[in-house]
Amino acid sequence: MESRNIRLAVIPGDGIGTEVVAEGLKVLEAVGTKIEPTHYDLGAARYHRTGETLPDSVLEELRGYDAILLGAVGDPSVPPGILERDLLLRLRFAFDHYVNLRPVKLFPGVETPLADTSPEDIDMIVVREGTEGLYAGTGGAMRRGTPHEIATQESLNTAYGVERVVRYAFEKAKARPRKKLTLVHKTNVLTFAGDLWQRTVDQVAADYPEVTTDYCHIDAASMYFVSQPERFDVVVTDNLFGDIITDLGAAIAGGIGLAASGNINPERSAPSMFEPVHGSAPDIAGQGKADPTATILSVAMLLDHLGLHAESARVEQAVADDIVERLAGFSARTTGQVGDDITTRVAG
Amino acid sequence: MESRNIRLAVIPGDGIGTEVVAEGLKVLEAVGTKIEPTHYDLGAARYHRTGETLPDSVLEELRGYDAILLGAVGDPSVPPGILERDLLLRLRFAFDHYVNLRPVKLFPGVETPLADTSPEDIDMIVVREGTEGLYAGTGGAMRRGTPHEIATQESLNTAYGVERVVRYAFEKAKARPRKKLTLVHKTNVLTFAGDLWQRTVDQVAADYPEVTTDYCHIDAASMYFVSQPERFDVVVTDNLFGDIITDLGAAIAGGIGLAASGNINPERSAPSMFEPVHGSAPDIAGQGKADPTATILSVAMLLDHLGLHAESARVEQAVADDIVERLAGFSARTTGQVGDDITTRVAG
Ligand SMILES: CC(C)[C@H](C(=O)O)[C@@H](O)C(=O)O
Ligand SMILES: CC(C)[C@H](C(=O)O)[C@@H](O)C(=O)O
Repeated sequence: MESRNIRLAVIPGDGIGTEVVAEGLKVLEAVGTKIEPTHYDLGAARYHRTGETLPDSVLEELRGYDAILLGAVGDPSVPPGILERDLLLRLRFAFDHYVNLRPVKLFPGVETPLADTSPEDIDMIVVREGTEGLYAGTGGAMRRGTPHEIATQESLNTAYGVERVVRYAFEKAKARPRKKLTLVHKTNVLTFAGDLWQRTVDQVAADYPEVTTDYCHIDAASMYFVSQPERFDVVVTDNLFGDIITDLGAAIAGGIGLAASGNINPERSAPSMFEPVHGSAPDIAGQGKADPTATILSVAMLLDHLGLHAESARVEQAVADDIVERLAGFSARTTGQVGDDITTRVAG
Repeated sequence: MESRNIRLAVIPGDGIGTEVVAEGLKVLEAVGTKIEPTHYDLGAARYHRTGETLPDSVLEELRGYDAILLGAVGDPSVPPGILERDLLLRLRFAFDHYVNLRPVKLFPGVETPLADTSPEDIDMIVVREGTEGLYAGTGGAMRRGTPHEIATQESLNTAYGVERVVRYAFEKAKARPRKKLTLVHKTNVLTFAGDLWQRTVDQVAADYPEVTTDYCHIDAASMYFVSQPERFDVVVTDNLFGDIITDLGAAIAGGIGLAASGNINPERSAPSMFEPVHGSAPDIAGQGKADPTATILSVAMLLDHLGLHAESARVEQAVADDIVERLAGFSARTTGQVGDDITTRVAG
């Protein structure tokens, strides 16, 4: 991997996506990796210009990269769901990103909205399933616009899909000091899907005797994220519950400006994709107000995924140090200044 | 309504359900209403004894009451979903409790896990749909237990079902000082159901020009509940999102021990049902450790629903006063002591 350049596809996307990705790339270069970035102008602008979201030819081209760095997609000028489904979710599904990895970690010096909470209390990894559940997109509407309309959404869950992500989560749990895995679901209402998830966790657990397993309904988990975040070490959950709980996780860990994620294809049959958890935030776009830290931490995950562990650690350390300085009373910095400051640390 | 006794069906249920319901009944009696309670032993014990969850004959009997007070159902000795679906959800569906009303309100003196947050910041009502969505119970499994298993869950949403609950929520919003209604959904992924919900809100909004409407994805809403709870006044959402967000609401408003709910049939074609948001908590059952306040606040909602507004206000005030005393440094009280203290205030 070190012998040749890393071929990176960059999809800045919409809104603040372009701003934060620029900073992520600065850091990537500073860390001394030989990276060869190629930009793709997918997102709202292209959609308006050509009507395209993600042409098949581009999808196939993207398949050839080592990894993808994505900013954010979505714009109020595009009806809800179009860019999300036909671009972002299409990439996750097409490249079989069945692990959506989202650390929830309170860095020392970060202000959490929770009272009496310190970094030891919030240090977990959420392993969100990324290719099934309600995100499958199946469903429909009948008699639309009439008083007799019915609209359905279907959650599709397979043993194949659940087992592989559960196994991945057990591997993560095994590698961590606490070795605890919590399944989050709603088995008492979603009885068919819940039964599959719980049975799978029980079965895979037999291969991981050193890992303690636990179960929590999604409603109770949402409560515990706020009242007892220290309950959680590794969380495994489905696509929708994972979506909700990782935004909540971002909130307790100091905000969406710090939350990183990786859409991982563990078998490497297609490139994995790294992106901040936050959206395109059109309301603050173009003003240099966005915090690029989430993207920079996503870059650290990218490096780790590519086997560049030392480089990844250096980026994460630079972020941690930068955050401590904030505590020391930094005045507000622009997106570019935060990126520069972290870049300097990484390079220095 | 005042001329005759209120006929109340009481379903204490499992675990701490029995303990908290006993306190709720104490308060109901003290408030001076002529109430005629009839107990129903539905729950885990009856299920083990007779295999029954909710016999049709009992369901029909319950239909004749003015209201139902429920403690909690669920026990680890019963497989997940049985009591929830065949008892609790069956009642909600059979009695057309399409409004699941859940105030999220920080009482002065209550400790919230959120830093720098005061009672003015947390004062909302969540109007959760109660008879549709993923709670419809449709779905299934194929090739169960094999590597080729597929498990599905279906979310069913109708114009009829969505419109009536949205209209109810607008009425609530109109009656509150801020007059703000926020739809919480996931329109960018659940495009069919989301489209129905969003269109319905837009249409009904035309009848309520004085109400400001807003929209928030469920993931963002979970974040805002923690970081900016003051954003919300009335929230309207579907059954599952409402389940999640009201537990989160309970957490930020001082815990599940204080969270009340009403399963409302606004047309009164069947009795409404009042219950604390918390579950049966088998781990602390029988020890006098449960806080009966959530049940007592549910009793206040029950009184209000029956038109006994002054009585309802008295109960709520008694709870508010009791909570202030807690702040003054009460030592830990048992379930019964809390009930007694509030009863004394209501009576006095
Ligand atoms: C934009 C949206 C489709 C996406 C999701 O729901 O997965 C986002 O919220 C996320 O969490 O990455
Ligand atoms: C017990 C369970 C079925 C129920 C629900 O999911 O509605 C509970 O969590 C609630 O919120 O009342």
